[in-house]
Amino acid sequence: MTKKISIVDIANTLNISKTTVSFILNGRAQEKRISEELVERVLKLVKEVGYKPNSLAKSLRTGKSNIIGLMVEDISNPFFASIARLIEDRAYEKGYRIIYCSTDNDTGKTQDLITMFRDRHVDGYIMAPPSNIDDDVRSLLKSGSPVVLFDRYLPEVETDYVVVDNQFSTYNATRHLIEQGYSKIAFITFSSQQSQMMDRVTGYKNAMKEAKLKTFIKEVDFNRNEELIIEPIHAYLKKNPTIDAVLFGTDHMGTCGLKVINQLGLKVPDDIAVVSFDDYDVFKLHSPPVTAIAQPIETIADNIITLLLKKLDNGNAQTMQKITLSTNLNIRNSSKQVVKAV
Amino acid sequence: MTKKISIVDIANTLNISKTTVSFILNGRAQEKRISEELVERVLKLVKEVGYKPNSLAKSLRTGKSNIIGLMVEDISNPFFASIARLIEDRAYEKGYRIIYCSTDNDTGKTQDLITMFRDRHVDGYIMAPPSNIDDDVRSLLKSGSPVVLFDRYLPEVETDYVVVDNQFSTYNATRHLIEQGYSKIAFITFSSQQSQMMDRVTGYKNAMKEAKLKTFIKEVDFNRNEELIIEPIHAYLKKNPTIDAVLFGTDHMGTCGLKVINQLGLKVPDDIAVVSFDDYDVFKLHSPPVTAIAQPIETIADNIITLLLKKLDNGNAQTMQKITLSTNLNIRNSSKQVVKAV
Repeated sequence: MTKKISIVDIANTLNISKTTVSFILNGRAQEKRISEELVERVLKLVKEVGYKPNSLAKSLRTGKSNIIGLMVEDISNPFFASIARLIEDRAYEKGYRIIYCSTDNDTGKTQDLITMFRDRHVDGYIMAPPSNIDDDVRSLLKSGSPVVLFDRYLPEVETDYVVVDNQFSTYNATRHLIEQGYSKIAFITFSSQQSQMMDRVTGYKNAMKEAKLKTFIKEVDFNRNEELIIEPIHAYLKKNPTIDAVLFGTDHMGTCGLKVINQLGLKVPDDIAVVSFDDYDVFKLHSPPVTAIAQPIETIADNIITLLLKKLDNGNAQTMQKITLSTNLNIRNSSKQVVKAV
Repeated sequence: MTKKISIVDIANTLNISKTTVSFILNGRAQEKRISEELVERVLKLVKEVGYKPNSLAKSLRTGKSNIIGLMVEDISNPFFASIARLIEDRAYEKGYRIIYCSTDNDTGKTQDLITMFRDRHVDGYIMAPPSNIDDDVRSLLKSGSPVVLFDRYLPEVETDYVVVDNQFSTYNATRHLIEQGYSKIAFITFSSQQSQMMDRVTGYKNAMKEAKLKTFIKEVDFNRNEELIIEPIHAYLKKNPTIDAVLFGTDHMGTCGLKVINQLGLKVPDDIAVVSFDDYDVFKLHSPPVTAIAQPIETIADNIITLLLKKLDNGNAQTMQKITLSTNLNIRNSSKQVVKAV
């Protein structure tokens, strides 16, 4: 291993102080009244010896690392993986690098990750926040670090965020099922107190109430073991054989639901119509293809990174922006009207 | 914003030097002959004021950050997303945090990410390496940073790695198609000089040669725009209508291939049998379900993290371990024998 050239080596070679070299390399020569002749000598030597400043040391001096910390719920979920990828691309084009982590929706783990990011001098934070993280986000904002939330927001914290219109999306999808002639429509979702999940239930409830239909809501606890998600859906659909359509609250829930429907030997849409939140290859390639609420993933990523870079460029004192984007209901054969035998 | 308590504050309050406080907090009191009485006074005050050492400053002192840098090709690919997730879990259980990035298989971007990780004092590296990164990996190893490669390895660099038996996997899958009575078997894959992709082609070629069958190999350039992957597959299958089976080289290629087969209105397996490398929900839920070469994702993740932690705990001087794991051919209806009309 060859020893790296340091500022001290440069200073010793030219017989000047380390501080002078540092001022010159940080563009503060004029401010510090360092002669142009000396500046030229230093820059010439720097070029000759191939000195590269350590970027961490640089960020300790300048307070800027050009790194953004991104916290998603679970990187193995296709929605978060796609968003993370697009944000990484957009940021890279603008000279920022992204480092990301999964929070598991675990408040303690998220706090730990925030500490790690803070200590590594990231410039800003993008976060799909878990519950009870309000104080930590407030403290980041107070310390001058921009934070952009996405997917869900914290009702009690004043911050920028990018979300979709969850309530209208499930209202609209439920309306679609009602218009196709279904009436025993179930909503199967993860039990959660997060804003996006609460809004999805509300949208479904509102559409059912408006049509004077009875609601069928099944909330399943999240578990890393997929079998423990499949089992309660299986039990619920078996116990409620009159259900003729189901709206799944997330892509993960929809995929588990399709596995259950396969296990039960139910035909889609003849025995049961299917619509899911989030759209991805599993739904597009299913036979029949599955109607899905598509989030505008590229627009979400664009908005997140634009918001954050604006804050980084102009300081953190501006107005907060709360962006709500509309989704698209991609209607496919899994929810089309079926003429039933009388 | 409340000012954070620093070592200097502690030192000033007790009227002792900063260095003494630092020695005490780093467990070097005895070595530095600091009195037990003073140690107790410092620790008592530290507790009272709730001083928390900055972990970056700590890692600058101790040379250990408990952070591992993970570089995958593309985090939006389900294979890499699942591996990343499992590695993150395993590492977290052992007290390590993972920060990850996508390399895009771009050598320049990967070098840039390595610099970032190095400057942020990560303890070790896990990497699915792009081409021409040999010197950078060698330089990390020389500087004492453990590096574990996965998915592919660098034939010219002596390092630990975890891969699967790619050559046997495609040989075996091709044999399966031959045994089911298919003879015009195509191999459609990404053009790549990486070890895992070269091995996959070789396995297919060997099985075809052994059976004295003509090979049909289509290599498609990787593109972020899926349409530019679908088009050449579409053109190839249209131009070669006698092909009766196809083995896809990756999950992404397989998914694009299924879209083409849908577009062309081909029935699986009657018109064309399908097998793909990598197994995931798209293949499991397809009608008919798609035969797939499943990589042992959990075992891969376990081995990677075990190898790296061993190096971190025992220093980097040990023997290198090169681990090759077997895959599992999950045979489903997309490749079963079809009795053809004569």
